[in-house]
Amino acid sequence: MAIALIVLAAGQGTRMNSDLPKVLHRLAGAPLLAHALAAGRRLDPERVVVVVGHGADLVEKAARKIEPEAEIALQAEQLGTGHAVAQALLQLATFEGKVVVLYGDTPFIAPETLERLVENPADVVVLGFEAADPGRYGRLIATGDRLERIVEYKDATAEERAITLCNSGVICCDAGLLAALVRELSNDNAAGEYYLTDIVGLARAKGHLAEVVRCDEAETLGINTRAELAAAEAAFQARARAEALDNGVTMVDPSTVYFALNTCIGRDVVLGPNVVFGPDVTIESGATIEAFCHLEDCHISRGASVGPFARLRGGTELAEDVHIGNFVEVKNSILGEGVKAGHLTYLGDADVGEFTNIGAGTITCNYDGVFKHRTTIGANVFIGSDTMLVAPVTVGDGALTGSGSTITEDVPPGAVALGRAKQVVKPGLAVKLFEMLRAKKAAQKKGA
Amino acid sequence: MAIALIVLAAGQGTRMNSDLPKVLHRLAGAPLLAHALAAGRRLDPERVVVVVGHGADLVEKAARKIEPEAEIALQAEQLGTGHAVAQALLQLATFEGKVVVLYGDTPFIAPETLERLVENPADVVVLGFEAADPGRYGRLIATGDRLERIVEYKDATAEERAITLCNSGVICCDAGLLAALVRELSNDNAAGEYYLTDIVGLARAKGHLAEVVRCDEAETLGINTRAELAAAEAAFQARARAEALDNGVTMVDPSTVYFALNTCIGRDVVLGPNVVFGPDVTIESGATIEAFCHLEDCHISRGASVGPFARLRGGTELAEDVHIGNFVEVKNSILGEGVKAGHLTYLGDADVGEFTNIGAGTITCNYDGVFKHRTTIGANVFIGSDTMLVAPVTVGDGALTGSGSTITEDVPPGAVALGRAKQVVKPGLAVKLFEMLRAKKAAQKKGA
Amino acid sequence: MAIALIVLAAGQGTRMNSDLPKVLHRLAGAPLLAHALAAGRRLDPERVVVVVGHGADLVEKAARKIEPEAEIALQAEQLGTGHAVAQALLQLATFEGKVVVLYGDTPFIAPETLERLVENPADVVVLGFEAADPGRYGRLIATGDRLERIVEYKDATAEERAITLCNSGVICCDAGLLAALVRELSNDNAAGEYYLTDIVGLARAKGHLAEVVRCDEAETLGINTRAELAAAEAAFQARARAEALDNGVTMVDPSTVYFALNTCIGRDVVLGPNVVFGPDVTIESGATIEAFCHLEDCHISRGASVGPFARLRGGTELAEDVHIGNFVEVKNSILGEGVKAGHLTYLGDADVGEFTNIGAGTITCNYDGVFKHRTTIGANVFIGSDTMLVAPVTVGDGALTGSGSTITEDVPPGAVALGRAKQVVKPGLAVKLFEMLRAKKAAQKKGA
Repeated sequence: MAIALIVLAAGQGTRMNSDLPKVLHRLAGAPLLAHALAAGRRLDPERVVVVVGHGADLVEKAARKIEPEAEIALQAEQLGTGHAVAQALLQLATFEGKVVVLYGDTPFIAPETLERLVENPADVVVLGFEAADPGRYGRLIATGDRLERIVEYKDATAEERAITLCNSGVICCDAGLLAALVRELSNDNAAGEYYLTDIVGLARAKGHLAEVVRCDEAETLGINTRAELAAAEAAFQARARAEALDNGVTMVDPSTVYFALNTCIGRDVVLGPNVVFGPDVTIESGATIEAFCHLEDCHISRGASVGPFARLRGGTELAEDVHIGNFVEVKNSILGEGVKAGHLTYLGDADVGEFTNIGAGTITCNYDGVFKHRTTIGANVFIGSDTMLVAPVTVGDGALTGSGSTITEDVPPGAVALGRAKQVVKPGLAVKLFEMLRAKKAAQKKGA
Repeated sequence: MAIALIVLAAGQGTRMNSDLPKVLHRLAGAPLLAHALAAGRRLDPERVVVVVGHGADLVEKAARKIEPEAEIALQAEQLGTGHAVAQALLQLATFEGKVVVLYGDTPFIAPETLERLVENPADVVVLGFEAADPGRYGRLIATGDRLERIVEYKDATAEERAITLCNSGVICCDAGLLAALVRELSNDNAAGEYYLTDIVGLARAKGHLAEVVRCDEAETLGINTRAELAAAEAAFQARARAEALDNGVTMVDPSTVYFALNTCIGRDVVLGPNVVFGPDVTIESGATIEAFCHLEDCHISRGASVGPFARLRGGTELAEDVHIGNFVEVKNSILGEGVKAGHLTYLGDADVGEFTNIGAGTITCNYDGVFKHRTTIGANVFIGSDTMLVAPVTVGDGALTGSGSTITEDVPPGAVALGRAKQVVKPGLAVKLFEMLRAKKAAQKKGA
Repeated sequence: MAIALIVLAAGQGTRMNSDLPKVLHRLAGAPLLAHALAAGRRLDPERVVVVVGHGADLVEKAARKIEPEAEIALQAEQLGTGHAVAQALLQLATFEGKVVVLYGDTPFIAPETLERLVENPADVVVLGFEAADPGRYGRLIATGDRLERIVEYKDATAEERAITLCNSGVICCDAGLLAALVRELSNDNAAGEYYLTDIVGLARAKGHLAEVVRCDEAETLGINTRAELAAAEAAFQARARAEALDNGVTMVDPSTVYFALNTCIGRDVVLGPNVVFGPDVTIESGATIEAFCHLEDCHISRGASVGPFARLRGGTELAEDVHIGNFVEVKNSILGEGVKAGHLTYLGDADVGEFTNIGAGTITCNYDGVFKHRTTIGANVFIGSDTMLVAPVTVGDGALTGSGSTITEDVPPGAVALGRAKQVVKPGLAVKLFEMLRAKKAAQKKGA
């Protein structure tokens, strides 16, 4: 059965108090929209239509970045969820199969839940949940799983309000039927909006079968304020931390480790307090990440140790037993087995061979003001402290650079390269200098 | 109506277990005393008298720093709150208007509460609160808002102890009446102290009107131990974080962001986990502060990005779109639009023109052992990595410094400045050196 | 009375999901085993036998490191606690006195509890606790403190299961009696294991007296999963933080300070948020540790200030009023009174005399690729920014090094040492260079 996703992402999110469209606020380092799309992707959809409105350009750009195949439907005016779905259906006119409607501000729907939704053979399937406090949610009027209609809170009788089975808004419906039902929606209500929820009643009136599929209330959490966003982040992290512990990761204080959507950490990895993961980090078994580390888009191999106070950036690969120490930044660099860079170093756009030692204060000067260049360092090299490697430059296997050297030309294997002035000593001069400076200060004080 | 503040700050705070006078312990980066004074300042008082005793010199110095106009009254012996107020009144002998008595260890009284206090026309006004657990607080004997007297817990009958309306200690009273009442206080009680609270009974006995003004119990929280101080800090931060979220600030984990008393953050600013604010930070809309940043006394403009692992210190101004990266410290420096300082840099006492790029490892050598000097860098300059700028020194617009250079003299606009030795290569020498060192090590092992 | 400890440390800890033996997982920076041994050490035992099994080599090595006098007994097969104790008793055949059995995965037993255990004159003494939720713990069948037997949960009647006095597993017994009882243990039970707990019934059957000594349930917490380990760490830290507050330490946010087993902090020390202590740190009264610091094996004297973003490593001693600033690492170095190292510095294997100023970007080049060497800096020295000190090297009292210098030879007292090239300026060259680079870029874009 072919599947098409419609993801509603046109809302402004007034209560976010933000210029950024709501669905682009970030959860676990990724836009809310990416979470909804990630869940939907697990259904292997043939088509994905994202409905944009407020901040349409920004949302379209983000959607294409997350899901390059995504199609965009513009909802120029916000006339309700039914209207939004209608815009998407224009693009799905020839599609045959089931349509699943998701929400860009609802990041926690489990892929398994969506699978249950599409496997249900009813004509219209609605995702519902038992609410601990139903509040102002729409209520599902159902007998067992058989759904009669959805009643908005404000239109509900006291009896209906006593129902705790609530509407998540997520639905699944045959594309042709959905298009027919949406065409019949009316905006004859207090808000003057076209409600997608009304399709259930319309479908039942025509004798179609509607069912409810139930999920956990936590999956249906929508984000409306920054406080809710912070709470959702906390919920995401709590789950990710518990999973990591189960998978054999040691964390000194799990509450201070921040995972991204796709962080992948092996067994017997030890994480100190205060580790922040950006997207796309994988760590192999038995590596150690000390306190105060910031990692993104990198691969850390077995036995490597990182930190404290280390930052790994995009495109970094650490082979086995690499050591990255304090106040060290590595960006877009490949470090071979056993490489050590222990102190105050910037390695950017570099390839470093195995067992090379990078002295404290080393910097790859990878930018000339216009272009970026690579630095290539061989195996078993000894880079002396405070070596400036002016890229593009190559240091051969087994070579040595003297501390304090600026290396602008390639260094052959086994050679020593120096780029520093000879030391000159001026006896007694420091005494005179400080006498002079202190006299000047005393004179200033007197004058003041 | 003229207002005078009396702030009691003479106590030792024995339970703090500290050499530091209690009111100088810090909450949100400022002494407790500063919080009480900040609330009082909102009444626009004509006079402010701080009563000091334990650690008088330190407290006096701190009070003058917080409130340069503050007057100091010394309470040489700690004979009770009535006695403390009497010392302050000596200095207010000619003052006409209302006196408000505050406490240096009670940081949370809201300015709005104090406004309600002084607006109440009764002769003596006492700030009271409904206590969830009244415990050993003094009880307010009142009918509606009409106050009869204040009874200390230990003198209270069982019936009086059942009262939950408690005394905060904060009062407001006409200066002349207060002086007259305080003169009549007696120390004929178990503690042998003069209690300020007794003035209510004295006033009523003379036919004066007394009223209670109510506030939230949380406002009256006093600090007696370090655990209470830590709890007060947590309460302050919880409030500040909630306000920031409401105002449109995004925080990945609000519980790890530490605000100061006067932190000012614009809409759509994003704060990563673990951001610490010292006093006097303002951040304009749309700036980003990454994880692990430490900021104080600085201004960050729209679109700027800071961190991770960055520190901004006193007197720093970042113009729009400045980028400060990891392991970078900026102190007392003005950075123009679009300036980038991405890695391992110290900018102290510097002016940097727009769109200048500061290479990794750059240091402004601003201290000669006696004096501090400024560094001036023009616009569109390219400072090469590991450039030492020995201040005072100027680098002109569009100039370039070679990486590894020590710049001791001014660089004209558009010029290249180099201060480094030419690279020398000694073929095969590294091989020999390491052979020698390893042989030495092997010999040592053999010898051992 | 002579005491022998037996510490059971042979289990695999399957639920830890780890290659590391369970007792080697760390709590407060030390292996679980170290916590049990530390408590036992307070009994001043004559003998300590650690029973190892899973990961025997690793556990043996760790045990010897923690307790050099420890003897090791191998339990090759895991046939129950009685069997494990039997292996240890083989080595205690000639020992006369009391034996205390502890568990390597039970880190919280208080030394005072163990003292009460060994002071009890009964023949067999069992440590019990009142369980809030007894669950599947073994139950102690006792009248007052007189113990009849221990019944495993699965063998218990409904009536016995209603008992809330539970078995911690910790026992104390005369060595000879224990050996006799252990020899009589049977493995005729569901698990086919020899249970140590059965010795109580055996002892009573022979007319020996058995008693229960009670402790707090929290002391008996055993670790079985990483989530439990994280919870135990949280419990340890909560206790350590509360103690530090009581002892007069100020913490801005106690929940972000991580203590080790033996952290020792004086009165009026101020700790910012996010401070991580490794083992063996002592801080004298009145020192300040700013946010984001990582300290291990170091001594910090009165009035010193450290951080933010500082790391102190093994063998570091800071004398009074030393200041260590941001992005500074100090390892195995002795810093005299008033030394300042404020920015981006690595001091390793160094001795620094009093009142010396270490400029930003200074590095002690202590490693030549094979050996480590010391750097000696005198008093009142001014080390200029970005000075490389190639060890072994000595800088005399009152000397000065020019910024950007590489110092390879000793500097006499009072001398100035420079090792840098003279600055050369090439007027207009930067303009030409950037014109060229930008032209190249434009050409590339055109070509692309």
